[in-house]
Amino acid sequence: MLSSREVEKKKNNKVVEVGDVKVGGEELVIMAGPCAVESREQLFEAAHRVKEHGGQILRGGAFKPRTSPYSFQGLGEEGLKLLAQARERTGLKIVTEVMDSEDIDLVDSYADILQIGSRNMQNYGMLKKLGRVDTPILLKRGYSATIKEWLLAAEYIIAHGNPNVILCERGIRTFETATRNTLDLNAIAFIKETTDYPIIIDPSHGTGKRSLVTPLAQAGISVGADGVIVEVHPNPKEALCDGEQSLKPAEFANLVIKLDKVAKAIDKKLAV
Amino acid sequence: MLSSREVEKKKNNKVVEVGDVKVGGEELVIMAGPCAVESREQLFEAAHRVKEHGGQILRGGAFKPRTSPYSFQGLGEEGLKLLAQARERTGLKIVTEVMDSEDIDLVDSYADILQIGSRNMQNYGMLKKLGRVDTPILLKRGYSATIKEWLLAAEYIIAHGNPNVILCERGIRTFETATRNTLDLNAIAFIKETTDYPIIIDPSHGTGKRSLVTPLAQAGISVGADGVIVEVHPNPKEALCDGEQSLKPAEFANLVIKLDKVAKAIDKKLAV
Amino acid sequence: MLSSREVEKKKNNKVVEVGDVKVGGEELVIMAGPCAVESREQLFEAAHRVKEHGGQILRGGAFKPRTSPYSFQGLGEEGLKLLAQARERTGLKIVTEVMDSEDIDLVDSYADILQIGSRNMQNYGMLKKLGRVDTPILLKRGYSATIKEWLLAAEYIIAHGNPNVILCERGIRTFETATRNTLDLNAIAFIKETTDYPIIIDPSHGTGKRSLVTPLAQAGISVGADGVIVEVHPNPKEALCDGEQSLKPAEFANLVIKLDKVAKAIDKKLAV
Amino acid sequence: MLSSREVEKKKNNKVVEVGDVKVGGEELVIMAGPCAVESREQLFEAAHRVKEHGGQILRGGAFKPRTSPYSFQGLGEEGLKLLAQARERTGLKIVTEVMDSEDIDLVDSYADILQIGSRNMQNYGMLKKLGRVDTPILLKRGYSATIKEWLLAAEYIIAHGNPNVILCERGIRTFETATRNTLDLNAIAFIKETTDYPIIIDPSHGTGKRSLVTPLAQAGISVGADGVIVEVHPNPKEALCDGEQSLKPAEFANLVIKLDKVAKAIDKKLAV
Repeated sequence: MLSSREVEKKKNNKVVEVGDVKVGGEELVIMAGPCAVESREQLFEAAHRVKEHGGQILRGGAFKPRTSPYSFQGLGEEGLKLLAQARERTGLKIVTEVMDSEDIDLVDSYADILQIGSRNMQNYGMLKKLGRVDTPILLKRGYSATIKEWLLAAEYIIAHGNPNVILCERGIRTFETATRNTLDLNAIAFIKETTDYPIIIDPSHGTGKRSLVTPLAQAGISVGADGVIVEVHPNPKEALCDGEQSLKPAEFANLVIKLDKVAKAIDKKLAV
Repeated sequence: MLSSREVEKKKNNKVVEVGDVKVGGEELVIMAGPCAVESREQLFEAAHRVKEHGGQILRGGAFKPRTSPYSFQGLGEEGLKLLAQARERTGLKIVTEVMDSEDIDLVDSYADILQIGSRNMQNYGMLKKLGRVDTPILLKRGYSATIKEWLLAAEYIIAHGNPNVILCERGIRTFETATRNTLDLNAIAFIKETTDYPIIIDPSHGTGKRSLVTPLAQAGISVGADGVIVEVHPNPKEALCDGEQSLKPAEFANLVIKLDKVAKAIDKKLAV
Repeated sequence: MLSSREVEKKKNNKVVEVGDVKVGGEELVIMAGPCAVESREQLFEAAHRVKEHGGQILRGGAFKPRTSPYSFQGLGEEGLKLLAQARERTGLKIVTEVMDSEDIDLVDSYADILQIGSRNMQNYGMLKKLGRVDTPILLKRGYSATIKEWLLAAEYIIAHGNPNVILCERGIRTFETATRNTLDLNAIAFIKETTDYPIIIDPSHGTGKRSLVTPLAQAGISVGADGVIVEVHPNPKEALCDGEQSLKPAEFANLVIKLDKVAKAIDKKLAV
Repeated sequence: MLSSREVEKKKNNKVVEVGDVKVGGEELVIMAGPCAVESREQLFEAAHRVKEHGGQILRGGAFKPRTSPYSFQGLGEEGLKLLAQARERTGLKIVTEVMDSEDIDLVDSYADILQIGSRNMQNYGMLKKLGRVDTPILLKRGYSATIKEWLLAAEYIIAHGNPNVILCERGIRTFETATRNTLDLNAIAFIKETTDYPIIIDPSHGTGKRSLVTPLAQAGISVGADGVIVEVHPNPKEALCDGEQSLKPAEFANLVIKLDKVAKAIDKKLAV
């Protein structure tokens, strides 16, 4: 595979640059924000808290992949505009999902990172088209994709021209039902050892429970991830999606403090 | 859910009409053909054998979802044209996969049934657009989708305007590695009991082994499926994809004879 | 492996004799009865109905493996005595579970077939001791055991001296939650093709739902199983375990009629 | 369930005392040693290195559960005697597996902790008998057991009289094949939050690869485990089992140094 680490291990990992934020380098990156962009007030409040407490990149969905056709589907382009405004106000970069190959150009005109969700990891038509832009791609692992399938999905993007792929482990589907998914931290260590991709973890989707996000984020940093992406909402109880796994701003602040300590214990540091 | 069977069970299932072929009615439908359209000779030979031995619908991929970007990706529109020619010559209807929402109109201009593959079952952008055509949709189950997620994917199509959905169980991903997938026949019985969708099985992908296709096809009919879709290739050893699970024409002929007997044992019959 | 079928396929399968009942031969065997032996009345009523409607072997648990320590654990030796009395009254053979290696001799003094449950499939201490008796063993597949692990568990018994192993597919654990387990019929076809073991299916545990037992039993026979084992209870609503998956006697009678038709369609017949 | 943490969270966790070693208290415990006791030289060398580099408890199997009946099955009581001698020489406590309920008294006469392996987690006959001793039990999670099933297995032991249960997460079976198992660190966080059991992790079985053991051990400590159990062998290349996942002594020394740093970052410390 194109990106496989040689037997003689490389000294440096691949670094994907998102403006002046580097993913995969010496500093760990924190991406945070609400599951969905719901309103100007909600998004701006979230963005300010993410910036204040140490995040570099704002997440938020404008197009939402929902299992049911009757669930909230996102604000669409209006959501993208709000994200761009939040970027202007805070200086945060923005990462947001593109759900359909026809929307790539639209989302690309607003976002700093294009997120490909778990359900689209093997949407090969879309992957090929993502090869034609040079915006960084956050490629989430399919919830039942093997590591090999995931790396081959990444190669679709690279082979079609865009080398800027960041992987994101977000939990796999197993028989366990106590947690929403099973965060596969073996995968982080395996990928860091055998490839040069930057890789981050998503403990929010990986656990589905607010109280488990911080310990799993700590574990993810300890095992070698280049950063985390977490859901933060000003008022999780009223969130239109994923409220039960979203951190409150004060919990997010506490998370960053804890990750800073763990990072230092393994001779890394947060981007801050 | 829209299509849920009422507690008081319905007397009749929903029938999806593909021209004069009815899927979900009293007669069991057989769809067969090669994994991929490879050439005029290969496709026409397969089509004639499918027709001769009792199939109603010809399958064949023009756009192929391949795990690796370096594998054969299909002939594209040229493959669609060959399928249309095979239809003219044999009278078979054709079913072929649409892999990208941008290709829906193109594929729809040739096909009698639009197939949505396992990896795109939750490609909601595409599902919504499929609601805008009225061509029948063959919705394959995602290889790790729950029955509930699958039915909700079907409702995306229906809720956006196209009621002509045929489900296809093609095996789920489990820990077992002796077979390519695990064909979930529980799902057939469960769906026949609780919904009114027509549903067929794909024992070729469901097992990944030629020698297991016929017994599992028999099982699928016994459990209540409305038909089967199987891979048939004039020369499986030289197939560009899925050769090890493709039946030879003589094996296909034998399959149809066996299915005919099993169908009668449960008071059904083949469409012939 | 000891029991692997040679490349040149054998003409005859291995037949395990349970008195005058042959498992793995030309006639399909039906084992039926309650999940647990609950009382004399319950067991005798079940046994008479099983005999009347065409079963050859009576199932019923005296020692019950329950996930919770607070659930009904079985009648123990009293249950074994009731099973022996039911055998005398009806002429049915009896199959019952041994849960602990210390109980092998006790259960063996009553039973015609010793059942090893899913949770003990890899209890190697017990498997070795089962090699020292010559009573037939019904080895249920571990709910997450690969086919290879299952066949190696069978070889533990054979390698220690007891060749009389009957396999039983009872459903595997997958991500699907709509049914209790996923009955793996691929495994039946695969094992019939590659080994000479007799193998039966358990659609009661394999589905967990009464209404799905009959269609899956039909599928199991169609795919090549040598028989079925099903739960039958005189009054499922009051069963101490597995009531929701137990057939009523009339449903069992209907099941046998349907299996008879399917058997004939594949040129087999029921033992009757 | 007996051991469920109250809604009002308890201030103290349950501590299981293994002589003067406390599992579940303020200090993190390290258990290490070879997969199997192979010889006096191998075991004593391993024991001395474990002691020298900071372990408190020596692991080593005398009775080995092997998938194949033709693999090395362990030295039996001779292995137990060697473990007892290694304890005398080093002062380490010993943990070793009991594979059969008939061996409980024998193993209990040598061991400080009785290990119940993954395949026996639901061997309820054995669990009940383990309730009659008061030696600490290391209850490994079944490789496909849900957290709930695991906690109920622990309650079997407790309900029958032995409160000294230590849980051990050792990886679950998933579709992923790049690693031997998938270490479920969600489970550690979930169990620490909802119960008062001490719980350790086994990154050796959890990954199956030597190079992944250290990062996953770090992750396990970060997420809240009370200790680790790892395989260490003087010469992994010649190990009779699990050589590819066993650390060399120098790697073990390095592991302890790294865990010490991670422990401090989360305000804990190693037992040392």
